[in-house]
Amino acid sequence: MRRIAESTVRRLSLYLRFLEAFEHQGVTTVSSEALAAQGGGGTTPAQVRKDLSFFGSFGKRGLGYDVRVLATRIRDILGLKRRYRVALVGAGRVGGALVQYEGFRDRGFEIVAIYDRDPKKIGARWNGLVVRDAAHLEADLKRNPVDIAIVVTPAAAAQDVVDRLVKGGVKGILNFAPTAISVPATVVLKTVNMAQELETLSFALARK
Amino acid sequence: MRRIAESTVRRLSLYLRFLEAFEHQGVTTVSSEALAAQGGGGTTPAQVRKDLSFFGSFGKRGLGYDVRVLATRIRDILGLKRRYRVALVGAGRVGGALVQYEGFRDRGFEIVAIYDRDPKKIGARWNGLVVRDAAHLEADLKRNPVDIAIVVTPAAAAQDVVDRLVKGGVKGILNFAPTAISVPATVVLKTVNMAQELETLSFALARK
Repeated sequence: MRRIAESTVRRLSLYLRFLEAFEHQGVTTVSSEALAAQGGGGTTPAQVRKDLSFFGSFGKRGLGYDVRVLATRIRDILGLKRRYRVALVGAGRVGGALVQYEGFRDRGFEIVAIYDRDPKKIGARWNGLVVRDAAHLEADLKRNPVDIAIVVTPAAAAQDVVDRLVKGGVKGILNFAPTAISVPATVVLKTVNMAQELETLSFALARK
Repeated sequence: MRRIAESTVRRLSLYLRFLEAFEHQGVTTVSSEALAAQGGGGTTPAQVRKDLSFFGSFGKRGLGYDVRVLATRIRDILGLKRRYRVALVGAGRVGGALVQYEGFRDRGFEIVAIYDRDPKKIGARWNGLVVRDAAHLEADLKRNPVDIAIVVTPAAAAQDVVDRLVKGGVKGILNFAPTAISVPATVVLKTVNMAQELETLSFALARK
């Protein structure tokens, strides 16, 4: 399958938010110009048309895109037509912020289990879930498989946790631990590093 | 100036982490193979050599790269040779996690002020800083300019806050509010959206 750049996927995700806001307002068609404004810094109408034509969606000249059809198409492309069961490993501050984040559930990502190793955190109730001892990970995954795990452990613990998750059948890992993690080719890994986000800013500032 | 893809910048950021770990261990040279292992999913030694040659850094065949020279070069490219004064707007959960994040200060990003509109939050002490009323933003920026602002407000408030920051001379915005923000061309904007991170995962899972 042809490789799609992550920047394209990110723009599709932003277009989708905008299309959904339009759907709620009862708007039925939208121009590539309006979508470009939602695509983030420097997205042009030509870029929008390229992004969408790549996935077989074409607007009508002078009319634009059908909002509902395009939203459905992008949801399909992004794999959002199903629900994902998500486990969170690491019940610290960032984990707390993520559990509260409503955008996950709205998009079909449901946090179904939370783990930690710290006896002071185990047993606490978070958003209706009880924080479980990470020692139960393997047994829990056998009984109640999850699709995706969000790893928010300290750097030193992350690879071990990821190995155990992968053995337990988890197919996607969102890693917040500030370290490089390796996974087999059958597993999708995405690392989010907050300092890295600031560094892409400082890089751009340094070149201005 | 030639445009550098954000994915390249992100890899440079990861290489730098690895080089610094090597520096601490007293290792003086490193191969492109070892760096590739740190570049995240699918980075090859050829990719590393391409990334670095683009910035004028060349390894020696059979010897690899000089760790210290390369780390200095990447810090320079990423604009990390200076310190950045950072303001945080929005003293909620995500803001709390960000303030605690040690990686920022280590990289030269120093959070020097925190703002909120909520009277229950104003006056609270966070990591040695007192949360200030967002009404003081303009006056504070005049007295103590900041380089970068991290915006963690609700979606509805974000554009207004960003407009005020930009007027106050802020040159870089890291936006966590789940909405599209616009800034003048002289300002660098980066939006982090957690649901979007999961969507790049679901996209990859759907295509497996």
